[in-house]
Amino acid sequence: MSVQLNETHHPALRSWVVSANDGKTDFPIQNLPFGVFRRAGSSEHFRIGVAIGDQILDLTLAQQVGVFSTIMDARLAHALGASQLNALMDLGNATASAIRAALSHALREGAPAQAGLQPTLVAQADAEYALPAQIGDYTDFYTSVHHATSVGKLFRPDNPLLPNYKWVPIGYHGRSSSIGVSGQQFRRPIGQTMPPNASTPSFGPAKRMDYECEVGVFIGQGNTLGDAIAMDEAEQHVFGLCLLNDWSARDVQGWEYQPLGPFLAKNFASTISPWVVTLEALAPYRKAWARDAADPQPLPYLDNANLRDTGAFDIELEVLLQTEKMRQEGMPAQRLSLSNFAHSYWTVAQMVTHHTVNGCNLRAGDFLGSGTQSGPAPEEAGSLLELTEGGKKPIVFANGEQRIFIEDGDSIIMRGWAQKEGAPRIGFGEVEGRLLPARSL
Amino acid sequence: MSVQLNETHHPALRSWVVSANDGKTDFPIQNLPFGVFRRAGSSEHFRIGVAIGDQILDLTLAQQVGVFSTIMDARLAHALGASQLNALMDLGNATASAIRAALSHALREGAPAQAGLQPTLVAQADAEYALPAQIGDYTDFYTSVHHATSVGKLFRPDNPLLPNYKWVPIGYHGRSSSIGVSGQQFRRPIGQTMPPNASTPSFGPAKRMDYECEVGVFIGQGNTLGDAIAMDEAEQHVFGLCLLNDWSARDVQGWEYQPLGPFLAKNFASTISPWVVTLEALAPYRKAWARDAADPQPLPYLDNANLRDTGAFDIELEVLLQTEKMRQEGMPAQRLSLSNFAHSYWTVAQMVTHHTVNGCNLRAGDFLGSGTQSGPAPEEAGSLLELTEGGKKPIVFANGEQRIFIEDGDSIIMRGWAQKEGAPRIGFGEVEGRLLPARSL
Repeated sequence: MSVQLNETHHPALRSWVVSANDGKTDFPIQNLPFGVFRRAGSSEHFRIGVAIGDQILDLTLAQQVGVFSTIMDARLAHALGASQLNALMDLGNATASAIRAALSHALREGAPAQAGLQPTLVAQADAEYALPAQIGDYTDFYTSVHHATSVGKLFRPDNPLLPNYKWVPIGYHGRSSSIGVSGQQFRRPIGQTMPPNASTPSFGPAKRMDYECEVGVFIGQGNTLGDAIAMDEAEQHVFGLCLLNDWSARDVQGWEYQPLGPFLAKNFASTISPWVVTLEALAPYRKAWARDAADPQPLPYLDNANLRDTGAFDIELEVLLQTEKMRQEGMPAQRLSLSNFAHSYWTVAQMVTHHTVNGCNLRAGDFLGSGTQSGPAPEEAGSLLELTEGGKKPIVFANGEQRIFIEDGDSIIMRGWAQKEGAPRIGFGEVEGRLLPARSL
Repeated sequence: MSVQLNETHHPALRSWVVSANDGKTDFPIQNLPFGVFRRAGSSEHFRIGVAIGDQILDLTLAQQVGVFSTIMDARLAHALGASQLNALMDLGNATASAIRAALSHALREGAPAQAGLQPTLVAQADAEYALPAQIGDYTDFYTSVHHATSVGKLFRPDNPLLPNYKWVPIGYHGRSSSIGVSGQQFRRPIGQTMPPNASTPSFGPAKRMDYECEVGVFIGQGNTLGDAIAMDEAEQHVFGLCLLNDWSARDVQGWEYQPLGPFLAKNFASTISPWVVTLEALAPYRKAWARDAADPQPLPYLDNANLRDTGAFDIELEVLLQTEKMRQEGMPAQRLSLSNFAHSYWTVAQMVTHHTVNGCNLRAGDFLGSGTQSGPAPEEAGSLLELTEGGKKPIVFANGEQRIFIEDGDSIIMRGWAQKEGAPRIGFGEVEGRLLPARSL
């Protein structure tokens, strides 16, 4: 197992931002994820920041204080001054790594930069976020074999796992325009469904509203149309990861999805967390990729000796629900499931390599979804469809409320984090989204 | 039947650009399609132009000569000076209509503007084109019931036309990054396929390369996330139409497409024609939408009394192939098929309305494909898969060459035009693309 760790990973590093050192924050000095923010409710331009403890460091202001003086050039200055991360992503991971190294030094206890930087910090509690990047194309994969099998059972009882699954990292194109950042609220979609035993479709608000807990992947440097990205270079094209809620209307999906896949069942909204955690920050939490002895070896173009041992990421994924009533009663969001990204059958590198093997070009800021991350145990399922066995087994909460699918006013919250003996806990923050009632017909 | 015709449609109008009056051009003064061009091989910025006869009128220069003086404002000046059509599309169809009216006057025989405009014309023979707009999202529909049925027979002999087809305008998301303009050349894609009777997949260049003849739809003004676009407003959100070749690798498609639809079989390249023909220019060529007596009536949200009579467009669609050998021998491209967009089961307005019924937002410059336009007769099929019955029936050309699928070096050319008693012929120009050999493995 070969994973490159550098100085920025050192578990003993502490920051002069004291909230970064409490051992509970998602954002210790070893994380330093990138995002786009402004003061909430202001008319400021959105700008690039890095999360540290419960604060945000504005990279334009950090640049003015000279934090990046040894690596600065015109392209980097342009990229850091932008209102989205695309230009920075396009500079490649060596640049992002140099920025993280400079920030790691500037934010350490005792750093001379503290005096200049401390007044520029914005509390996360006072911030609002935008999408980290302009997403040119969004592709959603289907990398959890546990999800594919249990959903397959519901849609195709005779044929749950299709013959291509263990050979092809199945993916399909999604909708960019309706991707929003945490806090997104959206109306229950309206559409066609075919009720059981009916002979003509119904039209109205979707009844089987669901979430899907996914890991999102932001592409860094792209590739030229016609060129493929090999496995051993794939992660150099990944800027970082975030959380993704791929909201789904199951009754719309069941009626529309053949033969060309999900469409209106998914494209009304997708919500992502605001912070992009770099693969560099995640280096201590790598694992061997998940394969059973009976599974076929990947075809050579999807195989790589080093990544067999390190291709997966040990990231805990938690999903919580908070109803309108819970909010009114001051009851916290209730956990629905806890799973782990390491159960994924296909890895991030395999997604990138497969996507480009035919010459398809990825661009900086393009976005990949991992597909619903369900683990092997039923309680690790990443969607209500699975947790309630297709709506047959309600989830009962401590306040007496029950759910089989999402109801109007419900919030879904997802959190992700990694921790390991000898390394600090780092996290993704959270992605929250809320379902509003359907528009009137 | 109610179709709004105005002065710009008058069949007797003639232009001082004499090539616009020959009765054969795609671009008489009644057409005036929008595109983005520059002098071929130059380093000029791409700019917005309108085709007239065999020439292009540069709209920035037309603006400077005062052609749009009565409708000019800062937003329009900004939109006309851009290097893509998105800002103009976003101004809405009333603005595009006002521009066409002003151009119709300025380009007429005897127009005083001739002296100022004539020196600014660029011959189409000297031009190169870029994508008309930045395409945020690309959605491909499946509107030809003849295509759906005949392809369905090949992929699912027991179940050719799925039960949802006549209720749901089936669509799925496509890839924006690999869409190119006419002249696009691309390498044969490499990927996984499952040969007949094999138990493990093969890896290598795709063997069953195909085209799909489609009509493309550019969205004009968009809608807000959560709002739907009703049928009677749908065409106000369509800027215009072009031609689309949705290249397809059938052997990749057959192995990968279940359960989430085509992915790598399609996203290596898609090629569109450079000129966007407005719905206003197409007004004389409308027809009743295609329904048999036995077909179900559309659900109310997809129905509209006026569009039942006028929702379809009578656009001839021709596909031609030219092999490397034909080019060397000076043999022209050979016709593969001739069909008509009026055979489409679902209309442009139904595509827009269905796409947004769940609240999905469309943005100016978004692109919809109609899906392969096959007519009812076998020789009207819009793909080789259909014309050769899945590769079983070769097409034999006059020079002795045969094809079942596309070979390296082949060009596919598509043309589209509309003509009618009492109205001039207008056309789309052509979209040409060429398959190059696969990259070496």
